[in-house]
Amino acid sequence: VEFSWSPRDGEPALVDIGEDAALELALPILPASRARLLGPGDDAAVIAAPDGRFVVTGDTMIEGPDFRQEWTTPESFGWKLVATNLADIAAMGAEPVALVMSIAVPGDARASVLAEMARGMRDACLQLAPGCGIEGGDLARSSVITGAATAFGDLDGRAPVLRSGARPGDVVAVSGGLGLASRGLALLFERATEDGAPDEFALARLRAAASEDELAALDAQLWPRPPIADGVLAALAGATAMLDVSDGLALDASRIARASGVALALESARIEEAAGGAERCAEWSVERVLAGGEDHALLAAFPPDAALPGGFRAIGRVEAGSGLLVDGRPYAGPLGWDPFRP
Amino acid sequence: VEFSWSPRDGEPALVDIGEDAALELALPILPASRARLLGPGDDAAVIAAPDGRFVVTGDTMIEGPDFRQEWTTPESFGWKLVATNLADIAAMGAEPVALVMSIAVPGDARASVLAEMARGMRDACLQLAPGCGIEGGDLARSSVITGAATAFGDLDGRAPVLRSGARPGDVVAVSGGLGLASRGLALLFERATEDGAPDEFALARLRAAASEDELAALDAQLWPRPPIADGVLAALAGATAMLDVSDGLALDASRIARASGVALALESARIEEAAGGAERCAEWSVERVLAGGEDHALLAAFPPDAALPGGFRAIGRVEAGSGLLVDGRPYAGPLGWDPFRP
Repeated sequence: VEFSWSPRDGEPALVDIGEDAALELALPILPASRARLLGPGDDAAVIAAPDGRFVVTGDTMIEGPDFRQEWTTPESFGWKLVATNLADIAAMGAEPVALVMSIAVPGDARASVLAEMARGMRDACLQLAPGCGIEGGDLARSSVITGAATAFGDLDGRAPVLRSGARPGDVVAVSGGLGLASRGLALLFERATEDGAPDEFALARLRAAASEDELAALDAQLWPRPPIADGVLAALAGATAMLDVSDGLALDASRIARASGVALALESARIEEAAGGAERCAEWSVERVLAGGEDHALLAAFPPDAALPGGFRAIGRVEAGSGLLVDGRPYAGPLGWDPFRP
Repeated sequence: VEFSWSPRDGEPALVDIGEDAALELALPILPASRARLLGPGDDAAVIAAPDGRFVVTGDTMIEGPDFRQEWTTPESFGWKLVATNLADIAAMGAEPVALVMSIAVPGDARASVLAEMARGMRDACLQLAPGCGIEGGDLARSSVITGAATAFGDLDGRAPVLRSGARPGDVVAVSGGLGLASRGLALLFERATEDGAPDEFALARLRAAASEDELAALDAQLWPRPPIADGVLAALAGATAMLDVSDGLALDASRIARASGVALALESARIEEAAGGAERCAEWSVERVLAGGEDHALLAAFPPDAALPGGFRAIGRVEAGSGLLVDGRPYAGPLGWDPFRP
């Protein structure tokens, strides 16, 4: 047996049915944006930008560094590609309204992978950002499964929430999971391999035997649910700075500190309180949350008198100075990751 | 010797300098969009859409099916990725204002490839669509060189020019080269290989020995110059339908015919007149123009009394009926290409 993205039980491959037939299976699944003025089918789409501006971001998922096909079904690939891009729009205080997708897959993938991917994209839009839809894209052939998404957001006349607005005295708060996705990735490498290599059947056995906490960790890694609606809520509550925690809390908190010309002082006890269940895992630690992991939580600074909106929980304060403090001491631990370093 | 995108003469590779240093070399080269409200550096950019709408399209270039690194310098890769995306915006009758780029390259590529790519992107913006700039993107690592661009256009209050508006009596006209890019690709496969494989030194020898016409054909393939400004001119002149000829004139003309519910009647003598020098190549033929090639010309229909703007030249008429006629006979030749078919 060799499944993952390959044909199963005599199913056809993409090369057996061709591009047009594969797209005919997938395109009707994709939801339309509420901002659609002209949808897919011409050389380009036209999308409404009622306040005369649009927010735009792009992020990719590439087989190897970003995901393994043995652990990532086409459906969860589509879901995660949408979810991570929506998080960057939310982090500007904007409402995500549309995405454009460039997808490349091998010709010997099963014919249904595009439709499976489309289901994941649809579900992520419907569940995380209702009204957001897919308004175009491109399908290509590559030996490396690749997804490049571009996402668009609507600020509804508000100023974007940048990284650079945090002021001494502000409260630092976070919405979303901390450390769960990293724990999920560790679980995959520890218990979803066969002869040291990622394996979909080993993952199925892991899921069957996993505790509730472990299942939550696997879902945080494979089916992330960033708190998209909290982005707009933060903006309305007066957030002075915000970003999407995708490279570890320490690196992302340092980015706000540097851009704002302030220090961020975090408290590990409050990070633990904010971690939402992840801290029940034996392997969870504040150090792991600081050092890395694709949490896609929203990290924001709020004026001292602001009521924290949505799922935001305070984890520290903005102070005069520079850099990152944890429990009063300058942070000197590891910082995030670089795809071009081992 | 093994160059192409590899380090030359002891140069460092991307893995030797890391992502931040590579981006520091490349980002300052990229031009800013005239519509920039917030540029790269935060979770997302903000771009002006003065008429409350934006046009968006996405297209990819993937090593293997779309280009070979032995024939495509990082600079021409950047140029072509921009140029082909701008053509899709122009084909809507819009002015291109910005692009977002997702780039993936192998870690063992030379450290300067991103800066070289950025120079090609910059030059394509400056020369083909002044005012257009790069407003963000993503850098990732992949064993397959991949570029996914998303381009944005401004309609300045006009309706987009769709594929579906052609009416019987309209003049069919084209702006841009026809057949040159296809001739360039044939030249590469005929005379820029070593032991049957693409080879950069064989390409250098081909360039040194090539005639003026052959150099023009190579440039049309590797450094395409779609007539971007003619997109807006066509819209202002009342174009009823338009698209970018990227999959062969026959397939793209058939798309206008089908979307508009009409027949397109082309004349081979006028296609030859419109081909702009390509017909001087012995291998050029109307059949090749119809069957394929990445011309990135603009194909449009105009009302019978319209003065053809910019570089547009008439090649036929819109008639009642359906499908494509060439010299009065239904076209039955080959139609474009499908990346998932051999």
